[in-house]
Order: sequence, then C-alpha cells, then structure tokens
Amino acid sequence: MAPDPLEELVSLLARLPGIGERTATRLAFHVLAADPEYARSLGKSVGEIHSRIRRCEVCGNYGAEARCGICLDPRRDGSLVCCVARVPDLRAVEQSGSFRGRYHVLHGLLAPLEDVGPRELPLDSLTARVQQEGIIEVIVATPLNVEGEATALYVAQTLSPLGVKVSRIASGVPHGGELEFTDRVTLGRALAGRRSLDERH
Amino acid sequence: MAPDPLEELVSLLARLPGIGERTATRLAFHVLAADPEYARSLGKSVGEIHSRIRRCEVCGNYGAEARCGICLDPRRDGSLVCCVARVPDLRAVEQSGSFRGRYHVLHGLLAPLEDVGPRELPLDSLTARVQQEGIIEVIVATPLNVEGEATALYVAQTLSPLGVKVSRIASGVPHGGELEFTDRVTLGRALAGRRSLDERH
Repeated sequence: MAPDPLEELVSLLARLPGIGERTATRLAFHVLAADPEYARSLGKSVGEIHSRIRRCEVCGNYGAEARCGICLDPRRDGSLVCCVARVPDLRAVEQSGSFRGRYHVLHGLLAPLEDVGPRELPLDSLTARVQQEGIIEVIVATPLNVEGEATALYVAQTLSPLGVKVSRIASGVPHGGELEFTDRVTLGRALAGRRSLDERH
Repeated sequence: MAPDPLEELVSLLARLPGIGERTATRLAFHVLAADPEYARSLGKSVGEIHSRIRRCEVCGNYGAEARCGICLDPRRDGSLVCCVARVPDLRAVEQSGSFRGRYHVLHGLLAPLEDVGPRELPLDSLTARVQQEGIIEVIVATPLNVEGEATALYVAQTLSPLGVKVSRIASGVPHGGELEFTDRVTLGRALAGRRSLDERH
C-alpha cells in the first residue's frame, strides 16, 4: 500500500528545524483546512526555491541573479569585507546598519567531527578576492563558539601571507546585559577585551 | 521587478499557524541550505495534499479513498457516533483508546461572528446517518468553550426529534490536575457533574 499522503507530509515537515511531530501534524492539518490555492502556492514556492535562488558567484550571498545586490552596489566599500558563516548572519549584520562593506559567506564552519575541513569552505575564492579586489581588511564575524573561533583562526592564518588586515568582531557583555547574569566566559572576554575610555572616539 | 523568491517563500511560510516572520525566515534558509531533493519532495507533498487527501463521504474524516478506514472497518460499533469539530480531535479520541464507535466531523463550529451558521455544518448528513444507520447514541465531543458548547446544543436540538440519544463529553478537573490550580469554571463544572461513588462501575 502506498504511504498515506498526510503521514508523508507530516514526516517531511517534521524534518524542519524546531518542528516536532506534533507541530508538523498541526501544520499539515492547517494546510488541509486552508484554501487549496495556498497549498499549491506554498508547495510551488518550496519546490522551486533551489532553482530560483542561487549563490552569488562573488560572495556566496543568496539572490536571483549571478551576482547579489550587495556585490553590484557601487556605494558599498569594496576595501572592507565581512566574512560570515551563513546568509542569516549576513542579514543580521546588514540589519545592524553599522557595516557598509561587502561580504564573504562561508556556508559553513570548520567541524572536524562532521568531516567539514578547510577544503569544504570557499577560502580559495576569498584569497582570490583579497588578491584582486583591493581589500584592506577582512572582519571575521563567525559565531563566538568553538567552531566559529577555530574557523576565524584558520581564515586569519590563510590570509596572513597576503598582507591584508584580518580582524575579529568583539566579544563581551551584550547590550542591556546585567553582569550578574552574564556567564563567566563572556565576562572574562569582556574584561580581556576592555578598551581605554580615553582612547574612545 | 518580480518579487524575490526567498521573500515570497518567507511570506507564505509565515501564514502557517504559530510561524512568525522570524521562524519563517529560519525555515526558508534551512530549506535552501538542505538537499534540493528535500525541497522538491516537501514542495510536491504540500502542493498536492489537497488533491491526494479527501474527506470521507460518510463521516468527513480525511483519507485517500472515498470512505475512510474507520467507516470501512466492520469491527467498529456503528450504533455509536462521536461528533467532533475537526479531524485532529477525532485523532485525539482515537488515541485515547476508549472509543470503538464511528465519527462525524463537522469541520467547524457555530461562530455567528465569523458568519458560520448551522448551514455551514454537515448536520443534514448527520441527520441522514441517524435515520439510516441504526445509530443509538451520538456523543458530542466538540470543545468545552463557548462555540463548542453552542454547537453541541444545536446538534442536540437538531437530532432530538429523531429519538436518538445525544450525550456530551464530561467536563471537569483533568487527570493529574491540582484543585488549587484549577480555574473556577472547571471546578464548578466538576462539582455539578459529580458522580456517586456507589454507582461507579
């Protein structure tokens, strides 16, 4: 007997992050109870997303064209590149409104236990960009966890022979954070990364 | 310019219940980062669900055929029908393991404010079933809220001329519930619906 289409939909939905069997069932029933036109639109949109969205050939950002809007924007500062693990991180940096350079998306982090080594990351293309685009500084904005830190170090080692400045985003107590409820590692980093108030601009 | 396929996917996903803009974005990025074959399967499954799943012509339960598995099962007690608002409620009753009769799914509740009147509910087909199937009792298992109660009363009024017994599921303190933390309405209902311990079987 063929698998039940409803069970099949539930099991596919349950593979989404943060969606358990229960939520998947609720979503499936919602789709069934809603306008069939909605189900068709959503199905088409999901099914075609990989063929309609591609990675920018320069930086790896998602877009509908060969080059993303940021790489094509002449007002962006081409001497400054922010290196991120994933496109959502790029979006977060964009939304902070405090960066006007370009990006390089790694689409991953070094993770030896999951067989992700340096070869799986687009570091050759980053090296080539540094050599060709007149980049002065690469800000490594990978996450502040073990894999993000290891990847940041590796990016710095890879780029150091090229004479480009490689920097790392600051780690410390987040905006609005209470010291009392800040974990020890973060507080240690905030202390180690202290800045002189006199030098502040 | 055509809408961005990614934004389009996010806005379609955000129409699902309990899925906000943020979660929709996370899901869309997950689909993009995952195996394209997964996106195609999920898209196909969502898009075709309305054509692959239909409502049982007898009871309204979902199934791949004209009649659902429960209606076709000769071991179910055809003299007893449980009337529920939605298919997930039918599943909950099934999972309780304490009902071996058949069902009638209303696919809604009376909601005058949302323009859902008695005509929108399949009460004609329930009436016809009572007249034709030798049903002795209809247990109304709509939710214990205003709309569920109003619908239960209406079902009872509709069926009463037919001489069939119409009952309502019990309302009371849930299993494991502490009286201290039980709301007043529930506690009032639990008291009003008290059963003699002598008569218990």
